[in-house]
Amino acid sequence: MKHKTAVYRREHFNAAHRLFNPALSADENAALFGKCSYPNYHGHNYEVVLKVVGEINPVTGFVVDTKHLSDLMKEHVLEKFDHRNLNLDTNEFKTLIPTAENIAMVIHQLISPHLAPNLDLTVILYETERNYVEYPA
Amino acid sequence: MKHKTAVYRREHFNAAHRLFNPALSADENAALFGKCSYPNYHGHNYEVVLKVVGEINPVTGFVVDTKHLSDLMKEHVLEKFDHRNLNLDTNEFKTLIPTAENIAMVIHQLISPHLAPNLDLTVILYETERNYVEYPA
Amino acid sequence: MKHKTAVYRREHFNAAHRLFNPALSADENAALFGKCSYPNYHGHNYEVVLKVVGEINPVTGFVVDTKHLSDLMKEHVLEKFDHRNLNLDTNEFKTLIPTAENIAMVIHQLISPHLAPNLDLTVILYETERNYVEYPA
Amino acid sequence: MKHKTAVYRREHFNAAHRLFNPALSADENAALFGKCSYPNYHGHNYEVVLKVVGEINPVTGFVVDTKHLSDLMKEHVLEKFDHRNLNLDTNEFKTLIPTAENIAMVIHQLISPHLAPNLDLTVILYETERNYVEYPA
Amino acid sequence: MKHKTAVYRREHFNAAHRLFNPALSADENAALFGKCSYPNYHGHNYEVVLKVVGEINPVTGFVVDTKHLSDLMKEHVLEKFDHRNLNLDTNEFKTLIPTAENIAMVIHQLISPHLAPNLDLTVILYETERNYVEYPA
Amino acid sequence: MKHKTAVYRREHFNAAHRLFNPALSADENAALFGKCSYPNYHGHNYEVVLKVVGEINPVTGFVVDTKHLSDLMKEHVLEKFDHRNLNLDTNEFKTLIPTAENIAMVIHQLISPHLAPNLDLTVILYETERNYVEYPA
Repeated sequence: MKHKTAVYRREHFNAAHRLFNPALSADENAALFGKCSYPNYHGHNYEVVLKVVGEINPVTGFVVDTKHLSDLMKEHVLEKFDHRNLNLDTNEFKTLIPTAENIAMVIHQLISPHLAPNLDLTVILYETERNYVEYPA
Repeated sequence: MKHKTAVYRREHFNAAHRLFNPALSADENAALFGKCSYPNYHGHNYEVVLKVVGEINPVTGFVVDTKHLSDLMKEHVLEKFDHRNLNLDTNEFKTLIPTAENIAMVIHQLISPHLAPNLDLTVILYETERNYVEYPA
Repeated sequence: MKHKTAVYRREHFNAAHRLFNPALSADENAALFGKCSYPNYHGHNYEVVLKVVGEINPVTGFVVDTKHLSDLMKEHVLEKFDHRNLNLDTNEFKTLIPTAENIAMVIHQLISPHLAPNLDLTVILYETERNYVEYPA
Repeated sequence: MKHKTAVYRREHFNAAHRLFNPALSADENAALFGKCSYPNYHGHNYEVVLKVVGEINPVTGFVVDTKHLSDLMKEHVLEKFDHRNLNLDTNEFKTLIPTAENIAMVIHQLISPHLAPNLDLTVILYETERNYVEYPA
Repeated sequence: MKHKTAVYRREHFNAAHRLFNPALSADENAALFGKCSYPNYHGHNYEVVLKVVGEINPVTGFVVDTKHLSDLMKEHVLEKFDHRNLNLDTNEFKTLIPTAENIAMVIHQLISPHLAPNLDLTVILYETERNYVEYPA
Repeated sequence: MKHKTAVYRREHFNAAHRLFNPALSADENAALFGKCSYPNYHGHNYEVVLKVVGEINPVTGFVVDTKHLSDLMKEHVLEKFDHRNLNLDTNEFKTLIPTAENIAMVIHQLISPHLAPNLDLTVILYETERNYVEYPA
């Protein structure tokens, strides 16, 4: 029996963001998000790991070339998000709060259409060394 | 279909411990645990990661606020274990050997009652950079 | 109900390798593997993590002693691969391309026969901080 | 002869910033600072290390208590910079470009008046894992 | 002109300790050392870096073989301190408070007599990722 | 008084090498270099840090743009060494043993002519997480 194998590729981008739900009052936003909702934004060094599961191709010894994963990230994610303000500069977070959970989900939506259908994608996003998320789980 | 998402929060504490089973002889303890059973204790910088799986709340963009996970760890785990001798200062390890496996299981028991029932908890415990465990697996 | 627990042990080795498929032309190899196929080899600091899942033994508090995992790695993997050229010095990669995926699969084959049958092994292999794999996934 | 000893304490904050010199044209700013000058800010997880050199106090065994260094950072630096926009929310960077070099120099100015005169302070600031500075050098 | 070169070798040990000055009252110890003075000890994963400065030997290309530094650490430091209680199990800390500063100074005293006289030793000791020291500075 | 400031830029490359002095016998090489002298090479993920000391330019807030340091590394070092066999593929190590000490010295020689004369360069080279060097010291 052939087992599946996972390949991981780590990339990073630096961005500003703010957690704020316009449907809620200022007090409700402050209660929910604390200093993460300060009006003038703060930022992070985001680390993104793509995890891709599939079978090893006997010709290449690869499940998928990590260079290809890196290229997909550059074209579909870093070009949009790196050195940007996620709330102001991106379409994806015009109406979606840029929490780590939502950023991981959006990166999944941006990358998965470009992977071969026999490959499964998971996105792991580090907002800080101590706070990170994985989508889907 | 809505996928579930995992949120991870890393905390740390410093503690002394010793691996020793009082039901066994001194020789058996030495054979099983080697220098980990030296009588006067040694210690570690423990890193604990809580992994919580659930659905993203559309109002907050969170599965669970990592600040809440941090507060739960402070109240229910760090208050008891940080800068303590696990064998001498805690009820949990009066009759349970404080291996990494058992410490992770105990932290799971201390934290999970305080999480909403639709959330699933896994505890990852690093005893050193090279030795770590995950409960449940 | 008793949950299973995972124990992780990290080891490392330094080796040279080259990605090259002798069934393909020089141009095809260059197109597939780029600078990873340069003829005189390059190398990596490989980090290997063994993940072993099983039940906690109540006598020891261990699923498996990490010292035992370390000894298995030394005897069955590091002795063969550390400070070696994977393509030239090992039987395992005489006819198998030493990609991270294949190295992880080979380490799984070398270690798993030596584990108790009620334990499940996964191998995680870091080729660099940014490229790593997991077998099986 | 008694040698001096250095004590290091690491803290972190998350902030937004933008590199921009108002005395220069838009083109000159773009040429100098590239994507670091994008108008809507980006951000970083800044890691700050205070290095304090002095003699070991025989009563305490400390050069300086790292808890005291942590408290000084919280009161004089993190309170001002954490989760803030350095360009918009701080007096220090109203007329000074918030490069890593200048942030380290400003932190030095904010902390050094609060240290005993026989202690020497150096500030190490990590903007990313790959870009960092030290003041004074 | 030939410049000098520094060689660094990192080792680690796990130990228990407690900060306590027997010349002071219980209240004074609590005020000075807080939870670091709890009576039953806590512990750390200590990381020790030896920095050795000298000239490159043209025959070997080494200032000093890192294997030799590792052997010196094993024989003169790890044998004494690893998996031990620094306060109870060592002569060095019978009358000296085992702060990071003092541990670094003691390691310097234990290692430097075994280095060639044309080599200069500095010891860097990490008590945690956030608290570390360097002796001499 | 204006203090000087240090700027650090970290890059990496992967290479194969072997420690071997052709002026010595096979036995002498084995005694000196152990498994590092195995005939078919091994390799490392080398991390290189350039440390550049100078004054902060008030127009840019930079001592030197880390992008410039990165470009210098790509052109003068990575182009030559990345994914190469240091012994076989480079002129620099045709007659010089590629120890970490010598690699750092060579990188210093390759980069320093391209820096402004008022800047001082130090090269820090990590061969592994536990073995690294600094030139000059």
